Amino acid sequence: MQKPSFLGTLLPLIQAPMAGVQGSALAAAVSNAGGLGSLPCAMLSQQALHDELVQLKGLTDRPFNVNFFCHTPPVAHPDREAVWRKTLAPYYAEHGLNLSAIPDGPGRAPFSQEAADILEPFKPAVVSFHFGLPEPSLLARVKSWGSKVLSSATTLDEALWLQEHGVDAIIAQGLEAGGHRGMFLTEDITTQMGTFALLQQVVAAVHVPVIGAGGISTAQGVSAAMTLGASAVQIGTAYLLCPEATTSALHRQALLSPAARHTALTNLFTGRPARGIVNRIMRELGPISQVPPAFPLATSAIAPLRAKAEACASSDFTPLWSGQNASGCKPLPAGELTQELAELVQSDSGARL
Amino acid sequence: MQKPSFLGTLLPLIQAPMAGVQGSALAAAVSNAGGLGSLPCAMLSQQALHDELVQLKGLTDRPFNVNFFCHTPPVAHPDREAVWRKTLAPYYAEHGLNLSAIPDGPGRAPFSQEAADILEPFKPAVVSFHFGLPEPSLLARVKSWGSKVLSSATTLDEALWLQEHGVDAIIAQGLEAGGHRGMFLTEDITTQMGTFALLQQVVAAVHVPVIGAGGISTAQGVSAAMTLGASAVQIGTAYLLCPEATTSALHRQALLSPAARHTALTNLFTGRPARGIVNRIMRELGPISQVPPAFPLATSAIAPLRAKAEACASSDFTPLWSGQNASGCKPLPAGELTQELAELVQSDSGARL
Repeated sequence: MQKPSFLGTLLPLIQAPMAGVQGSALAAAVSNAGGLGSLPCAMLSQQALHDELVQLKGLTDRPFNVNFFCHTPPVAHPDREAVWRKTLAPYYAEHGLNLSAIPDGPGRAPFSQEAADILEPFKPAVVSFHFGLPEPSLLARVKSWGSKVLSSATTLDEALWLQEHGVDAIIAQGLEAGGHRGMFLTEDITTQMGTFALLQQVVAAVHVPVIGAGGISTAQGVSAAMTLGASAVQIGTAYLLCPEATTSALHRQALLSPAARHTALTNLFTGRPARGIVNRIMRELGPISQVPPAFPLATSAIAPLRAKAEACASSDFTPLWSGQNASGCKPLPAGELTQELAELVQSDSGARL
Repeated sequence: MQKPSFLGTLLPLIQAPMAGVQGSALAAAVSNAGGLGSLPCAMLSQQALHDELVQLKGLTDRPFNVNFFCHTPPVAHPDREAVWRKTLAPYYAEHGLNLSAIPDGPGRAPFSQEAADILEPFKPAVVSFHFGLPEPSLLARVKSWGSKVLSSATTLDEALWLQEHGVDAIIAQGLEAGGHRGMFLTEDITTQMGTFALLQQVVAAVHVPVIGAGGISTAQGVSAAMTLGASAVQIGTAYLLCPEATTSALHRQALLSPAARHTALTNLFTGRPARGIVNRIMRELGPISQVPPAFPLATSAIAPLRAKAEACASSDFTPLWSGQNASGCKPLPAGELTQELAELVQSDSGARL
C-alpha cells in the first residue's frame, strides 16, 4: 500500500491552478485520481468562490488545493491608462468598438480576510499562493486551520524568502511554465531560469520539499523532475484539453496547432509577465511592452477587443496561456491523464516524499 | 564490458566546446576519462588550429570532437560601427583609451575549405558546428572522412532543418546553456526554450540521436536528461573551474560568487546572443541592445576596454560566459569530474545509445 505524500495525496502530482480555464470539475477529477487538484480563485467573486468550494467538496472527499494571488492592488494611473487606450485605439477602430465605454474587465483580487472567511469552513488540505505570500497575520490564519501553504519561486532568492516566511513547500516555477510568472522579488525577466537549472539549485538551497514546475508534460518529465530532486511536480498545460477544463474552443485549437511551438512571456493581457502562445497583439505590440498599466489593470481595455474578436472566431486578442511544452496536451479525462503522468513514479512516490 | 556509444565513447557525455576558455588540454582529459572532449576552433588561427590538433592527438588516442562556427561573415557597416563606438565612448574616456586606435579584436572565423585542409589528416571522430551547418559540399567533405557531424538546435524548426541537412545527431541546446545560442533560423530570442521543454519535443520529432544541453551540471542532471530521451548530454559550465581549462582568475571568481546566480543573454560582446553572468556593461547597456554591430564585429571595440579593465582586476567588460546552473562547477581535474557526472548512467550507457 502506498504511503500518502506530504501533500496528503497518493501521487506526487499537483494539477496547476489555471484561472479562467478551469474550476472545480477539473480539480475534483485530479484529486479523485490520486493527485492534488487545484481550484484557481484569483478571478472568482466571493459568491463564486463559495459556490465553487461547495461544488468541489461535493465532488471529492480527497485533498485539494485552493489557489489565490497575493499581489498588492495597484493605484490607478489615469495617464498610463490613457496611453494604453491610445495604443489600443487602432484595434478598437478596426473592431467598431468605443474606447470611452470600457467596462471593468475581469479583475483579479488578492487574497483577503473576506476570502479567508469564506475559505475557513472548508479547511482545504493545501492553499497555494502566487506572487509571494499574504501578510503575516493572514498567512497565520490559513496555517491555523492546518492547511499546508505553498507558493512559487522563480529564483533562488524567492525560494529562500518563501522558506523564511514559513511555506510548507516551494514550487520551483521554471521559465517554461505557462500563465503568470510567480515572480515577486524582481520584475527583471532575465532572472527567470529554466526548470532544469532552477529546480536543482532550489533543492540544494532549501530544507522544505520542492515541487518542480515548467515544461513537465509526460511521465518521463515527471520522473526526470524527481531525479532532479523534486518531491512532487505541478503540471498545468497538459490538462488544458481535458473535458473537465473550461478551455475555450479557440484556445484548444491553438494548443493543437503548430502555433503552440512558439510561446512568449507577455505583459499585454494583464500587466504582468505570463506565458502564452504568440498571437497578433503579442506580435504587434510586444510581447513585453512598457505601455500596459500595472497588473491587473491592463485587462479592462483588452477585454472588449478580446470578446469582439472571439465572437468572430479570432484569438488575436485572447491570452492563449500555455507552457513551452504543449506536446503533452491530450483530450483525455483528467483522471486518466493524471494516472498516465504518474505512471513512472507511482510505485515509489511514498518513499520519495 | 561497456559497448561504445554512437559517438565512439564509453560515456554518453560531451564536454561542450568553449572558445576562449579551453583548448586541447581540457578536451584530452575528458576524452581520456571516457567522455567526448571538444576542441573549440572558432577563435583559432590556422596555425593555432594545426598546433592544437597535433597537441590533442598527442594527448589522447580516444575519440574527440572538433567544433567550428559556421556563420556567414558580416559585411562591415561603418555607420553601425560608429554608433557602437559612440556608445562605448564614455567607457573609453573613463579608462583613458583612444577610440580611434581600436585594433581588430579576436575574430571568429567560420569553417572554411582552408580549415578543412588542416583538419583532414586528423579525421576527428566527431565534428560539431554552431549556427547551423557549412555549405553542402564542405559538409560532405567532412562526412567523407568518416567524421560524425553534430550541430545545435534551439527550436523544433532548427532540429528538423538539421536532420534534413544530414547531421548524425542533434544537440538540443536549452535556454539555460552558457555561451552563444546556436540559433540560426531565427533571431527572436522569445523562441528559445528551456531544456525540459526543448529536449522532449526534439526527441519526439526527429529520428537521429539527440544530445541534451543546458543547465546540466550533476550526475542527477545527466540522468534526468536521459530520462527525457537524450542519447547523450553536452556539459560546459561545470568544466570551467577544472585546472585544464584556461578560464581566467576573474572568470573563476565570478563563477564561485553569488553573482553567478544571475546570468542573461547578451549580444554586447560579439553581436550575437550568448549567456553570461550579468556584469557592469550588461547592466548599463543591455543585456540585449540594438546598438552592437553584427557578429562577430562587436568584439573589436570591446576588446581594449576588456583588456584595460582586466588589468585592474575588473570584469566589468569581460564576457563571463556561464549557463544558468553554475552550482555544479568544481575545481576538480576534468577526468574526475567526467566520472562524477556520468556515475548514474555509466552502467547502461551502451544500451541507451
